[in-house]
Amino acid sequence: MLILGLDPSLSCTGWGVIRVEGSRLTHVANGQIPTLAKAPMAERLAALHRAVSEVIATYRPDRAAAEEVFVNKNPQSTLKLAQARGVVLAACGGAYEGRGLPLREHAARAVKKAVVGTGGAEKAQVQAMLKVLLPAAAIAGPDAADALAVAIADAHLG
Amino acid sequence: MLILGLDPSLSCTGWGVIRVEGSRLTHVANGQIPTLAKAPMAERLAALHRAVSEVIATYRPDRAAAEEVFVNKNPQSTLKLAQARGVVLAACGGAYEGRGLPLREHAARAVKKAVVGTGGAEKAQVQAMLKVLLPAAAIAGPDAADALAVAIADAHLG
Repeated sequence: MLILGLDPSLSCTGWGVIRVEGSRLTHVANGQIPTLAKAPMAERLAALHRAVSEVIATYRPDRAAAEEVFVNKNPQSTLKLAQARGVVLAACGGAYEGRGLPLREHAARAVKKAVVGTGGAEKAQVQAMLKVLLPAAAIAGPDAADALAVAIADAHLG
Repeated sequence: MLILGLDPSLSCTGWGVIRVEGSRLTHVANGQIPTLAKAPMAERLAALHRAVSEVIATYRPDRAAAEEVFVNKNPQSTLKLAQARGVVLAACGGAYEGRGLPLREHAARAVKKAVVGTGGAEKAQVQAMLKVLLPAAAIAGPDAADALAVAIADAHLG
């Protein structure tokens, strides 16, 4: 069973794939998808759609997971994030010749609780636990780390 | 020159294609893309991406236009709209084997001003003017009407 964790954002979407065998988790791959800040919005979103579709086609995960959306106080930030998020979800829903990759959403607190043991954990604690849980992973950056955390939480949440 | 107007929304995205020859506008096609309210979000967004991509592949417009995004007071509504909007923009940006369909955004007031002559026009006035400007069009519904209005505004705005 392969799980794809996703941390969507317009500027840099994180992704991470883990393998689940019983209670054993192993790292498969992770990465970050930046988009060109100067490019038109439609091009950035199209590039994001293409890149997420490629990750799915390459690793062929059995299911995907993302954090529940976070509504920012700044409406423009919420808007940009939601546009990117819609594109990432559409890439999952349209994967496998339209059959779709099942995707679950988890609350940020549930992700922290699953990875660190407490919903109020700091980002640094999550990253430290990632090193323990996936010692073989060379993590591409903070967005990839967040994506791996969501994938681990998804595995724990059954 | 063919212009595709788009009115993105999760529940029902409107689209309309017009032809511009000098100062003459003619209707080519219009329609609405509903998504299944009961389906998972990722599937709805994937269906929307597919349908918009099909409209573009069928009519091969030279450019596209959409209204600038409207930030709703209800963050959940803004979120749903923005996710759908991101998918519609990504379909434009990824069209024509990734070369992309150029897309411009126009303020709602600019659209009304271009179609009716005043930025404060009512929806009914816009729809009445559509009948005058595109007498041959059988308009699929209010979302298709909004999409045709954006296409007309885009033509007028040069």
